[in-house]
Amino acid sequence: MMEQAEGSAPAPAPAPAPAPAPVPPREAISLEKAFEGKTLPTWNEQITVRAVVVSAGLGTFLSFIVMKLNITSGIVPSLNVSAGLLAFFMMKTWTSALERCGVFPRPFTRQENTVVQTCVISCSSIAFSGGFGTYILGMSRKIAKGFDEANNTMNVEEPSLWRVMAYLFLVSFVGLFSIVPLRKIMIISYRLTYPSGSATAHLINSFHTPQGAIQAKQQVSILFKSFLGSFLWSMFQWFYTAGNSCGFGSFPTFGMEAYNRRFYFDFSATYVGVGMICPYIINFSLLIGSIISWGIMWPFIESKRGDWYDANLPNSSLHGLNGYQVFISIAMIMGDGLFNFFSILFRTSYDMYLKRTGRAKANTAGVPFAGAGLAGANERQALSFDDRRRTQIFLKDQIPTVVAVGAYVALAGISVLAIPHIFRQLKPKHVVWAYVVAPIFAFCNAYGTGLTDWSLSSSYGKLAIFIFGANIGAKDGGVIAGLAACGLMMGIVSTASDLIQDFKTGYLTLTSPRAMFVSQVIGTGIGCIISPTVFWIFYQAYDIGNDEGYPAPYAKIYRGIALLGTNGWDQLPKYCLRFCAAFFILAIAICALKEVANNKTWWIRDYIPSALGMAVPFFLGSFFTIDMCVGSLILYMWSKSDRLHAQMFAPAVASGLICGDGIWSLPSSLLSLGNVEPPMCLRVFDADTNYEVEQFLSTLPTIPA
Amino acid sequence: MMEQAEGSAPAPAPAPAPAPAPVPPREAISLEKAFEGKTLPTWNEQITVRAVVVSAGLGTFLSFIVMKLNITSGIVPSLNVSAGLLAFFMMKTWTSALERCGVFPRPFTRQENTVVQTCVISCSSIAFSGGFGTYILGMSRKIAKGFDEANNTMNVEEPSLWRVMAYLFLVSFVGLFSIVPLRKIMIISYRLTYPSGSATAHLINSFHTPQGAIQAKQQVSILFKSFLGSFLWSMFQWFYTAGNSCGFGSFPTFGMEAYNRRFYFDFSATYVGVGMICPYIINFSLLIGSIISWGIMWPFIESKRGDWYDANLPNSSLHGLNGYQVFISIAMIMGDGLFNFFSILFRTSYDMYLKRTGRAKANTAGVPFAGAGLAGANERQALSFDDRRRTQIFLKDQIPTVVAVGAYVALAGISVLAIPHIFRQLKPKHVVWAYVVAPIFAFCNAYGTGLTDWSLSSSYGKLAIFIFGANIGAKDGGVIAGLAACGLMMGIVSTASDLIQDFKTGYLTLTSPRAMFVSQVIGTGIGCIISPTVFWIFYQAYDIGNDEGYPAPYAKIYRGIALLGTNGWDQLPKYCLRFCAAFFILAIAICALKEVANNKTWWIRDYIPSALGMAVPFFLGSFFTIDMCVGSLILYMWSKSDRLHAQMFAPAVASGLICGDGIWSLPSSLLSLGNVEPPMCLRVFDADTNYEVEQFLSTLPTIPA
Repeated sequence: MMEQAEGSAPAPAPAPAPAPAPVPPREAISLEKAFEGKTLPTWNEQITVRAVVVSAGLGTFLSFIVMKLNITSGIVPSLNVSAGLLAFFMMKTWTSALERCGVFPRPFTRQENTVVQTCVISCSSIAFSGGFGTYILGMSRKIAKGFDEANNTMNVEEPSLWRVMAYLFLVSFVGLFSIVPLRKIMIISYRLTYPSGSATAHLINSFHTPQGAIQAKQQVSILFKSFLGSFLWSMFQWFYTAGNSCGFGSFPTFGMEAYNRRFYFDFSATYVGVGMICPYIINFSLLIGSIISWGIMWPFIESKRGDWYDANLPNSSLHGLNGYQVFISIAMIMGDGLFNFFSILFRTSYDMYLKRTGRAKANTAGVPFAGAGLAGANERQALSFDDRRRTQIFLKDQIPTVVAVGAYVALAGISVLAIPHIFRQLKPKHVVWAYVVAPIFAFCNAYGTGLTDWSLSSSYGKLAIFIFGANIGAKDGGVIAGLAACGLMMGIVSTASDLIQDFKTGYLTLTSPRAMFVSQVIGTGIGCIISPTVFWIFYQAYDIGNDEGYPAPYAKIYRGIALLGTNGWDQLPKYCLRFCAAFFILAIAICALKEVANNKTWWIRDYIPSALGMAVPFFLGSFFTIDMCVGSLILYMWSKSDRLHAQMFAPAVASGLICGDGIWSLPSSLLSLGNVEPPMCLRVFDADTNYEVEQFLSTLPTIPA
Repeated sequence: MMEQAEGSAPAPAPAPAPAPAPVPPREAISLEKAFEGKTLPTWNEQITVRAVVVSAGLGTFLSFIVMKLNITSGIVPSLNVSAGLLAFFMMKTWTSALERCGVFPRPFTRQENTVVQTCVISCSSIAFSGGFGTYILGMSRKIAKGFDEANNTMNVEEPSLWRVMAYLFLVSFVGLFSIVPLRKIMIISYRLTYPSGSATAHLINSFHTPQGAIQAKQQVSILFKSFLGSFLWSMFQWFYTAGNSCGFGSFPTFGMEAYNRRFYFDFSATYVGVGMICPYIINFSLLIGSIISWGIMWPFIESKRGDWYDANLPNSSLHGLNGYQVFISIAMIMGDGLFNFFSILFRTSYDMYLKRTGRAKANTAGVPFAGAGLAGANERQALSFDDRRRTQIFLKDQIPTVVAVGAYVALAGISVLAIPHIFRQLKPKHVVWAYVVAPIFAFCNAYGTGLTDWSLSSSYGKLAIFIFGANIGAKDGGVIAGLAACGLMMGIVSTASDLIQDFKTGYLTLTSPRAMFVSQVIGTGIGCIISPTVFWIFYQAYDIGNDEGYPAPYAKIYRGIALLGTNGWDQLPKYCLRFCAAFFILAIAICALKEVANNKTWWIRDYIPSALGMAVPFFLGSFFTIDMCVGSLILYMWSKSDRLHAQMFAPAVASGLICGDGIWSLPSSLLSLGNVEPPMCLRVFDADTNYEVEQFLSTLPTIPA
């Protein structure tokens, strides 16, 4: 199937869909046809000086925002879409201004736009994954003084500017190199959806669609309508979010009981959009996972409270219910991830063996195998013109695997020598272990993000804190070692998923992967300098850790986890490891069943849920699952009523929903930084609580008539 | 223009609308074409024995529900649509059951359905307009003992069964006879929309649409979808309405400040539907009225609090802000109503004069003039096949005006003699005055309901309480006189608007007006027996007026108004009468301007707001205005994107919205009677109140994690 894609001759047009007469045949909805007249810049033309300048500027701006949110609420929204939009407007203003002055620069292409967006995200994501609100700050004296335990020199490290910068340079590029060799598998073979990346690509394509392309114009118009609707809806929601658990995001759609089990529709346009992009089977898996975990398992485990774990622990403690949630979820994800990882390894080796013995088919070099059946029905239908064109471009500019692997090994070598000098609590052997395991985690996370749009890097980070903390112990500085290992793991894992997400954007905008990669390297480099600097300014200027003003809540939580970790493995709640083992095996069994079903073309192959999909809500709750199922439902009903229309416009609507909500993150972050509070709070009480609240309200002096 | 309508030959088909080719021309969307194959029963075939039996049963059932709500919350939803639906199912079950037994009765037609529905409404509306929760109960000892003032024999009258029944027989039929002669003007000449009546008609038509009528099928399918959506939405809303001012109906869509001025979207499907049926100009008038009153005038008057009226009065006092609201609103409505009333009188007399002098045109007998321009653009376009057919049927079976007028005069005569014996506080001269003024009020209310779907009968009732109470005084039993006069006025005014609403339903279902009229007479007669009986049972059985259980809040409010009224006219707030005069004149000026603009065909004629429309929100607030404008907006955008589609399906969608919400009234009433409380309460606080509530919540023991 993939051979077709590599050839450049256009495939014969598929037969028109069985629909009423005037509807255009399938090929007519091609977006790339609209772009065909435009020349494609070469990879080095895509990275321009102006792009780098704009990226650095935008990256700095966004880093400031992220950093401020890090140390105040600790809740950092995804600013990816904002980055794309701002990149577009700044570049457009730049070129238009020059044109007015009579200078005609090289035209601003969507590839350049993608490159800027990638560079900005690589840069500003360091401000988040660099752990300035979590692990780096959790090591500091300011946070440590809030705890009684382990408040000694071995377990406190001040975040000096050079130390942080050096550490970031060591850990941030590793994710890049570890995942680059796998990009083709994720994007081309598995055809993973990466909903956010796809949405950004649709937005960028929309900005650059040439005049006169009618079909595309229609898509663009629908995208902007859905974008506007989603933006206005997010803005509207904001007004009702004064205070904790206020607003539509905490609306008990299915009643209080279900809400307390995190079953509710949270009115998030983003996840409805994501649900429209993700395949049905993934959303279905998420739903099954939600029901199994939040509907059955957690209530069961809670009923053992006091028996299996200390009844006085809050639900958020890793030694209590949260421990089951995090570890079982990770075990299941690891099961699925490892199965796929080794499956790839085996197939690639087998292909290489066949090739060496001269028995290989001609064209499998670029794509070692045609997917492990993840894309389901998609796989089995002929590739569209767009897909063929995109695959062709994606495979043109290679990034030699040997370069990536070499760079990874070199960086790992340097790290093994250097990191123990930065954090003396980590010994070289620990670093070696971390670098051996990290690529597997990185693969699992990138793969999971592609399926479900959720990056679970913080879960991997918590796992690392726990494992390293438990093995090293408080007396040898286990707190710092755990937090540093968390940084290493999160750096690698979150970078990996971000960057494959970006590769998907690049794939859909015909941007050269080589240009993307170079842009990521540049962005990461800039980020490793800017983020620590911005953090250092804040750290010097403010009394961070003070509940009035800059509470940095997550820094405390991370230090808390590290402290718990140093108490050792036996502190895990009862049967937790057994549960983990069971779900790990279950995940592998499901993957194996799917593999067999695919090979034997059993009819059930399309109905086997994804183990990874099931595991994601174990920890996060079910609210986004409901959103995504609503997305599926909308798509299903739309397809039922007008299949072709849905096929043509659903991605545009979904992208609009995701991007509109995403853009609102920027003004809402700015409002939060400016201490502008929403004016109202929407709350839902159960009838009994409401009765008490009514009584209380009647005692207040100023109640509106 | 109306001449066409009277001829029976089909008019030539209008030219196809300027739209893309395959869309059917305007005539193709005819509903009556689908019904053409069905024979139309004569008027006396439409009133069957089974219809009367079912009506009596249903009427009793609904009377019980209404009565129970009367004496508990006092809030009685409109059960009209439920009546229509229940009528359909009971009749259908009846005929199907007979058919299964091998008996083949006369088929169940939509005309019979309409007759049952009309009869049920006439019957059960007595339970509401009979004032068992308001004026009748307000006279009783049980309620009087809650007040210090006027607690003497002259101002207390026990509601004995026979007295109430006799009084109802005297006042309930009067409304019927007073409005019947005006039905043609309201329905045919003015083409008033009567949104609820139209919606019910659409529902009934949908139930009876013959198989195989494709266009109609589509409409029916859309109606049921919108119906189901609206029903589910109302049901969903119910879950969040535990406690006072809970739920989406109290959602401050435009912020707290606007909410306190009653500007908010209350998510009522009914009024969005009504807004889709009402002409743009009416919704626009409502909006203007809202802004003038709640946006400008009331805040201004409130700023004079303590100067113009006693600062200690609550806003709900007729001597305070509420006085301005009720009296100004009534003054403006009366201005518009009287202008139209006398305009009709003048034109009819002029026509008759012309006819007598032999100068009349041939065909104006049935319809004295072609509308006073109220229907705007509708007037000036050719009548569709449906309109022509419906007008023809509507004008076929006449109810001679002389019968109606004669019956009115006879009933009035009996009343003048009998009512002073029932309530000795009312003297014959008072009754004479009431019967002279009432038809004008009845006209105003029926006309207003046709325009805006709001029956303001309780406002007219309050006016009557005030006028009669003030003129008679407490020492001569002004409280009872005022309440009895209120009953008389409400009986006439609300019956009038209900019945013209029903005539609209009859018009749209090709039901003979004579059948409708007879059915109304039968229904009213049944109601006058059933309602007092049901009330008498409740009154004997329960401790009504007791705040725990059966508080009957409105009975207290009405007695309170009567007590205030007996203090005389000078107790009205300052400048209130001047305001009334000003707005009365303003209303007449607007009507005159509209009249002139229509005659001179000025372009502004379609943009002159309706004075009556402006006056409605003066008293009620703006929430339903916003709903109706949302309806207008939806219709406008729909028409913009697909004019023909909107024209074909908007009435179906609107009817579905109104009916779905309406049907939910029945289960929600039953839930309320069964003391089933909704489980949750949705509230919105401003940020400051929320802060206090959060503090309070943290002190409660049982807060979900």
